[in-house]
Amino acid sequence: MTAPLRLGVAGLGTVGIGVVKIVRQHAALLKARTGRDIQITAVSARDASKDRGISLSAYDWESDPVTLARRDDVDVFVELMGGADGPAKGATEAALDAGKDVVTANKAMLALHGQALAEKAEAAGCVIRFEAAVAGGIPVIKALTEGLAANEVSRVMGVMNGTCNYILTRMEHSGLPYEDIFKEADNLGYLEADPTLDVGGIDAGHKLAILSSIAFGTRPDFEGIEIEGIERVSIDDIRHASDMGFRIKLLGVAQKTGRGLEQRMQPCLVPANSPLGQLEGGTNMVVIDGDAVDQIVLRGPGAGEGPTASAVMGDVCDLARGLRLATFGQPATALEAASPAKSILPAPYYLRMELMDKPGALAKIASILGNSGVSIDRMRQYGHEAPTAPVLIVTHKTTRSALDEALAAMEATDVMASAPVALRIETV
Amino acid sequence: MTAPLRLGVAGLGTVGIGVVKIVRQHAALLKARTGRDIQITAVSARDASKDRGISLSAYDWESDPVTLARRDDVDVFVELMGGADGPAKGATEAALDAGKDVVTANKAMLALHGQALAEKAEAAGCVIRFEAAVAGGIPVIKALTEGLAANEVSRVMGVMNGTCNYILTRMEHSGLPYEDIFKEADNLGYLEADPTLDVGGIDAGHKLAILSSIAFGTRPDFEGIEIEGIERVSIDDIRHASDMGFRIKLLGVAQKTGRGLEQRMQPCLVPANSPLGQLEGGTNMVVIDGDAVDQIVLRGPGAGEGPTASAVMGDVCDLARGLRLATFGQPATALEAASPAKSILPAPYYLRMELMDKPGALAKIASILGNSGVSIDRMRQYGHEAPTAPVLIVTHKTTRSALDEALAAMEATDVMASAPVALRIETV
Repeated sequence: MTAPLRLGVAGLGTVGIGVVKIVRQHAALLKARTGRDIQITAVSARDASKDRGISLSAYDWESDPVTLARRDDVDVFVELMGGADGPAKGATEAALDAGKDVVTANKAMLALHGQALAEKAEAAGCVIRFEAAVAGGIPVIKALTEGLAANEVSRVMGVMNGTCNYILTRMEHSGLPYEDIFKEADNLGYLEADPTLDVGGIDAGHKLAILSSIAFGTRPDFEGIEIEGIERVSIDDIRHASDMGFRIKLLGVAQKTGRGLEQRMQPCLVPANSPLGQLEGGTNMVVIDGDAVDQIVLRGPGAGEGPTASAVMGDVCDLARGLRLATFGQPATALEAASPAKSILPAPYYLRMELMDKPGALAKIASILGNSGVSIDRMRQYGHEAPTAPVLIVTHKTTRSALDEALAAMEATDVMASAPVALRIETV
Repeated sequence: MTAPLRLGVAGLGTVGIGVVKIVRQHAALLKARTGRDIQITAVSARDASKDRGISLSAYDWESDPVTLARRDDVDVFVELMGGADGPAKGATEAALDAGKDVVTANKAMLALHGQALAEKAEAAGCVIRFEAAVAGGIPVIKALTEGLAANEVSRVMGVMNGTCNYILTRMEHSGLPYEDIFKEADNLGYLEADPTLDVGGIDAGHKLAILSSIAFGTRPDFEGIEIEGIERVSIDDIRHASDMGFRIKLLGVAQKTGRGLEQRMQPCLVPANSPLGQLEGGTNMVVIDGDAVDQIVLRGPGAGEGPTASAVMGDVCDLARGLRLATFGQPATALEAASPAKSILPAPYYLRMELMDKPGALAKIASILGNSGVSIDRMRQYGHEAPTAPVLIVTHKTTRSALDEALAAMEATDVMASAPVALRIETV
């Protein structure tokens, strides 16, 4: 008879409550699959008196998550408080110091402190699992770390913030501007307390840093990511992109280049008929390119009580079954420092600009692009009544530096009515 | 210093050679990720003299796979010969009897003998891994067995035979009939030696039996699957389906019902804009519905040297890392016998028929459907010059038994020019 696996759950928000529900409702299923009883010993949250919709009286209550993490009757510390620093980090460290395994959904903590935590875990003979930290219910950490372990990965990319994808697809379907849909998302409770984490691309950036580390054997390098949020994506761009067969997604891409690891999180155009282009609403998608497997696409809900708790409990099942793995797929001490390469890989770009309606304006712009070595694939000038003319350009593949040179030269002319918009086109 | 993991590879076709290449090319990567050297000790195949494009002289050659399986210097027997019985099964049993772990890509063997092999493995303290047996490079066995282990699965479905999907999508794009595209696929080498395994739905059925077992905790029950191949899918049906916003896929579905486990492998209509509907060519897709996670979709190459070898080597990496799991996700002796339920769950159906062009013909058909309790959602009668009129009907949800009753009654009338075609519509 194998001993039960005893959980201490810190954080009783949506995900924490989802975990409690699965442990209760699927006790028999979990035992059949893992061979062990999975039990919750104690829980912890900020407010003991809050009504969370289910009774928690069967569990000891700890007001301090550090105390919870150290309890002798806890085998696995389940960290669902969130926040890169503060209580989450302190309690995770306490758990590892006390020799407990950790399961967490905390992408910020792992992106910023994952290296130190992984080293601490390994020194203590413990493991940290974090399937729920990236792309909600999609078992992408497992796919990348284990299922595709025999591949040299060339690229990992994905749509990993459901709120941003909801906003962008709602803008397209409703024809309403960013500000209106942002408010709608806020009213629906889709936004983090600090919405910049979502719409600024930071949350998705944390997730990309974690995937990169596993894919390329490098230390998580959140600072090395070029991040641009969706705040400046206009309904015009969404419409024009759609006219040309594209959709705009907040897309994270991590890719090895000859000069280092390129990590980007930015609004990109993707072909409308590609799996990424077809992704609607809050759904997440991760695309992994490996030398043996070619391309794997994983799709599923990126957030929510059930999906996130499913991922947390998948990790718990692994531990109950004795499946133990180094944090980022190999010993933390063996991970290399990432050498960040900023937008080296060439790509086609979408440019939108308002030109003054005067003779030679378009010729001036075209010649600036040519002088910078940026060649034009497609161009459209729209009919207009205003004194300025909307112009769209899709370039052939170019480097970002050549493009930036051209953009600067354009702004120095007297024919631009406003700063041009430039969005990368990611071929899928 | 951990000892190397030593493989004996039996079967040197496309997949076997792919495995040899990964072991050679990624020696450093595999060691970094698993902490162990992964080596091939000996290989085996029918023909020692055949040129396989790479040198195998570094490995011992065994003419008998059983001898290979029993070698003291083999830790893992990698079975890539194929075939449900014969040498593959004999050598796998020999490996387990000798206390070796087994990695295999053999769906037929697992679907038909998986229960006995799993019991043998467990009695011997060995594991059998088989990621490559289902959906090629997609790590779906891992996702279902491990990543989604905390879910009660309600349905597993997918397109799991790339050849059939190639044929169906090529028929749609070319407008050519089944026979022509079948020949084309044959010339391209896409078909098994016995093409019935592919186009008859048997190969895909083997895969479904494996997924069902893991999803529902039942013994693999290939015999319990209702199987229908794609041989009778006509270009007319593909065209009409497309006109109505559907595409035809050879779709496997396993689903729990109140009266047992329903497993079907048959051509179905799926919405053209769904992930399954958008699947082109030889790509595979598996869709898993779980109570916590909602729905996960996995997509990738279903066959080929690299993708299949990626899956085999993913299993090898698991074993090198000490990740060991019961064959179908729980002890084989605890699996329940599946109680097969034949098409109990209601669904809408697509019907195509040729009616004699005489007054009252359509009324007769409509009234037969009504009498059987089958109600009509949409109906189209096409213009025609021939003495028969093509009629398409999409029904509301109905049981297969009510539909079969109606179909039999239709055939007993004097208004049918030929037997009607009935295809299930799977809502995704």
